[in-house]
Amino acid sequence: LDYQHVQVPFEITLWIMLASLAKIGFHLYNKLPSVVPESCLLIFVGLIMGGIIYGLNDRSPPVMDSDIFFLYLLPPIVLDAGYFMPSRPFFENIGTILLYAVVGTIWNVFGIGFSLYGICQVRAFRLQDVSLLHNLLFGSLIAAVDPVAVLAVFEEIHVNEKLHILVFGESLLNDAVTVVLYKLFRSFCEMPTIKSVDVFAGVGQFFVVGLGGVLVGLSFGFTAAFTTRFTKDIRVIEPLFVFLYSYLSYLTAEMFHLSGIVAIIACAMGMKRYVEANISLKSHTTVKYFMKMWSSVSDTLIFIFLGVSTIGENHEWNWPYICFTVIFCLVWRALGVLVLTFFVNRFHVNTITSKDQFIIAYGGLRGAICFSLVFLLPEFHRKKLFIAATTVVILFTVFVQGMTIRPLVDLLAVKRKRESAPTVGEQIHIRFLDHLLAGIEDISGHWGQYYWKDKLEYFNSKYLQKILLREYDQPKSSIVLLYEKLERKHAIELAEAGQLGHGLAHPSLLNDRTVRTDQKLEDTMNPDVLDNMQEILARNLYRIRRTGPAYNRHTLPGESEPSEHAKEILILRHKSL
Amino acid sequence: LDYQHVQVPFEITLWIMLASLAKIGFHLYNKLPSVVPESCLLIFVGLIMGGIIYGLNDRSPPVMDSDIFFLYLLPPIVLDAGYFMPSRPFFENIGTILLYAVVGTIWNVFGIGFSLYGICQVRAFRLQDVSLLHNLLFGSLIAAVDPVAVLAVFEEIHVNEKLHILVFGESLLNDAVTVVLYKLFRSFCEMPTIKSVDVFAGVGQFFVVGLGGVLVGLSFGFTAAFTTRFTKDIRVIEPLFVFLYSYLSYLTAEMFHLSGIVAIIACAMGMKRYVEANISLKSHTTVKYFMKMWSSVSDTLIFIFLGVSTIGENHEWNWPYICFTVIFCLVWRALGVLVLTFFVNRFHVNTITSKDQFIIAYGGLRGAICFSLVFLLPEFHRKKLFIAATTVVILFTVFVQGMTIRPLVDLLAVKRKRESAPTVGEQIHIRFLDHLLAGIEDISGHWGQYYWKDKLEYFNSKYLQKILLREYDQPKSSIVLLYEKLERKHAIELAEAGQLGHGLAHPSLLNDRTVRTDQKLEDTMNPDVLDNMQEILARNLYRIRRTGPAYNRHTLPGESEPSEHAKEILILRHKSL
Repeated sequence: LDYQHVQVPFEITLWIMLASLAKIGFHLYNKLPSVVPESCLLIFVGLIMGGIIYGLNDRSPPVMDSDIFFLYLLPPIVLDAGYFMPSRPFFENIGTILLYAVVGTIWNVFGIGFSLYGICQVRAFRLQDVSLLHNLLFGSLIAAVDPVAVLAVFEEIHVNEKLHILVFGESLLNDAVTVVLYKLFRSFCEMPTIKSVDVFAGVGQFFVVGLGGVLVGLSFGFTAAFTTRFTKDIRVIEPLFVFLYSYLSYLTAEMFHLSGIVAIIACAMGMKRYVEANISLKSHTTVKYFMKMWSSVSDTLIFIFLGVSTIGENHEWNWPYICFTVIFCLVWRALGVLVLTFFVNRFHVNTITSKDQFIIAYGGLRGAICFSLVFLLPEFHRKKLFIAATTVVILFTVFVQGMTIRPLVDLLAVKRKRESAPTVGEQIHIRFLDHLLAGIEDISGHWGQYYWKDKLEYFNSKYLQKILLREYDQPKSSIVLLYEKLERKHAIELAEAGQLGHGLAHPSLLNDRTVRTDQKLEDTMNPDVLDNMQEILARNLYRIRRTGPAYNRHTLPGESEPSEHAKEILILRHKSL
Repeated sequence: LDYQHVQVPFEITLWIMLASLAKIGFHLYNKLPSVVPESCLLIFVGLIMGGIIYGLNDRSPPVMDSDIFFLYLLPPIVLDAGYFMPSRPFFENIGTILLYAVVGTIWNVFGIGFSLYGICQVRAFRLQDVSLLHNLLFGSLIAAVDPVAVLAVFEEIHVNEKLHILVFGESLLNDAVTVVLYKLFRSFCEMPTIKSVDVFAGVGQFFVVGLGGVLVGLSFGFTAAFTTRFTKDIRVIEPLFVFLYSYLSYLTAEMFHLSGIVAIIACAMGMKRYVEANISLKSHTTVKYFMKMWSSVSDTLIFIFLGVSTIGENHEWNWPYICFTVIFCLVWRALGVLVLTFFVNRFHVNTITSKDQFIIAYGGLRGAICFSLVFLLPEFHRKKLFIAATTVVILFTVFVQGMTIRPLVDLLAVKRKRESAPTVGEQIHIRFLDHLLAGIEDISGHWGQYYWKDKLEYFNSKYLQKILLREYDQPKSSIVLLYEKLERKHAIELAEAGQLGHGLAHPSLLNDRTVRTDQKLEDTMNPDVLDNMQEILARNLYRIRRTGPAYNRHTLPGESEPSEHAKEILILRHKSL
């Protein structure tokens, strides 16, 4: 036995296998997932696994290492989120989302940091040695809403699209703020004195980190689109480029201390439409399927690892600090949402209702990002306290908030996602209004959302498409294509209803046409259909032989299976002849 | 800049990217791949890369580490080979393949080992310190034909199916022999004295390693098939199981010192038909696509890494030894093929022609497996000589034999793979003969190939299918399905030829039918078609607006693009109304 040799890949495969089997297990029980969110179940599985491993080894495996999380587990989820991001609601609410993500997160960081510092001044709690900077540092990591946790819960409760994109978009874009504040406070902690220059540099960093991320992402995205122009002869490696370039964008951004999450989202959103047009349909299915698969496994692993890593001796249980952390997280988020929404509603016709505000505040789940960040903290004597507090906040938000949010959504009768797709009439109406508004904005000289959208679309069709698309597809073809597709569908319907044969047999219509189409059919019969026929023949001939009345030394006649099927085939074939 | 942090995934991604881009590059030039095999080009790229890196760093990167090769690069290729293995020619020739793989490899090992030992006795070459055991050890690693190299070359020259499967099957199955002999001689090298018991234990190991691999593979394969019975609700992780279980079978076999290659092939061949029946069509596309993609990237990386790792100072250039190694490799293989084929032909009606024999002997390419094994050798003072000899043998076989085999195949007019698929008539004929032969074997009590095939098929349908398949599909449905498929294809042909509309408009036939089918069409119109329509509308409406004669402050009328497309759409739509 040579376990050492295969240990690393073997254990990775086993963990993924465990995650996949756990997922299958939950779905076999149909009732369970409707009551308890999958994330809770997975953490639970992780806790059990962690307990077993801890019992056997006296220490938990280092599965939730910050490097593993940030380099391998997080990118697939963010890529999936970016690639399948509904771009219309996202860009319609981009202002609100940015407000929540930037101002809201800063508000939370300072709110939580300062009030926890206040708690530290209470002598009875014995926390006087935790400085303001450490509290702010802790605030910066605990304030950020986690995209993985939010996605896991919100995918199951089906709230309306706007609400979903507000919470989810915030959780993605606050990464830039978190990165900046976390690194700022961490470097402040290590500096002897803080100059005001440093503070200003920090403010400047926001823009660098966020916009830099967007820039890195877009450039990789466009490169990816450009590369897929040349893959016509080797279709089989097309899907690879989607994954390679997005991962490179993430890694490059991380390398330059920019926001990797923002970069990968920009990359995915930037490349999507061009790559889709360039690659083959099968490649595209593979890309979509693999992205979903990967993110789903990543997500499962994160929650299991979260459970596993919770077990251990890393914690310092100072309950007052921990409880106040949970309370402040809830209170400051609620306050922040209230205040920011007040301003947002003043400038919008389509206001955010108080029910929606409640769900936004309540949906601020914390997850694996905080968990990984707290382990990345520089060593100091109260690190274990911060770890304990983070663990409790995560478990509280995922379990208590995650499990109660669905009943609350039901109770408050929050507007749900519409089950049916909008009708074509509605869609035309919306588009018409878009054009109208773009026109009005154009005439009135107001540079609003519609104006920019229109300009972008123009720039896209004028320049980008010509560079990035292999076959610059003509606008007219798409309506013609739709017509053809409908015709084809109609024909299939007829064929399935068995009415095609009759129609064709009518002699007055089809004197010479049948001959022509028959020829055509023979031409196109070649590889695909023949393969299929051969496979089917191979299968059926075996069956017929076996179940037919053949002579066999080992069985008596009549002992074999009833040959109903075989008869049926023969009858069918005779009929068709 | 924080390169350290992202170094590992960044460099892996860059290598994969380089491999993919190299592949694209070669295919852009259509003429190049038809003259030089891709493997040679890739080694060449690798040599250049290795030269550059060596020039900059003064040492080559450890990319072709044995662990990297055996644990990460080899499994995807073997999995792909096993999954897409044509099972009929493989099992028809299994006896011959095993003979070549087992007896042929042993013949080569001892032939090359002993005759190199003879060379070492020549005083002028100054090689007297290389013992017989070391020569045999070297023989055991240099004798094995490499599946990766064989696949890369034979995929391009399109020889007939039997010849292909003989060479390729041998290269896969000789792994068991190579593993046993290599480990045997290596342990002999470290033992003070060798007892005859050890030799017998070695012979016993052949069966353990080979059959153990098959057993491990089949058990994982059936487990995989069984697992996919329960994935109906989470289609998205179905492809994962195919990869996870086959990889686990490989790792498990390696862990127990069994043949990992044999295990993964058995796993892939065992699971294929059941998994295919259980998983959805999209999952299956993803599995096939990803397998091909992965193996193609792996293959590319192996050849590039081979080139990179060749550059360095690991070599001891004792030319007599190296040249004689190349000569003995060629001679012993040719002799082995001649002798073995003589015996094979005596027992077969369908003999292997002398042209085929030449190609089998000439197609015995060496590749990355030898290269990795030679680095795994225990340290001794002539290791660098062995490394040099292995490198030269690989480069010689891949470049000289790989590049000349195509002209030779043309020159000798070796029977090629038939371009067209066999006709349905032929196929029925073959099947009929199979049944006949199975019946004859059954009556005459001869346990031949057809008898076993028939029994296996019976066991499969009676037991395995019931356990492993989710929906045990009825035999009758497949012919009906084919009929429906042909009908549908016919209908599409008609629709595309524009003849469906006329047929339907004829009033005598379609008095009430049109109404019925129209209703049906509306029912089925829902999600899919609507999505498509909306997307198309979204695109087209924008275009119409922009190119139409709208008022615009910034452009004069007539300055905008000619609105031909827009007009065309309008005309088309008017017509259709």
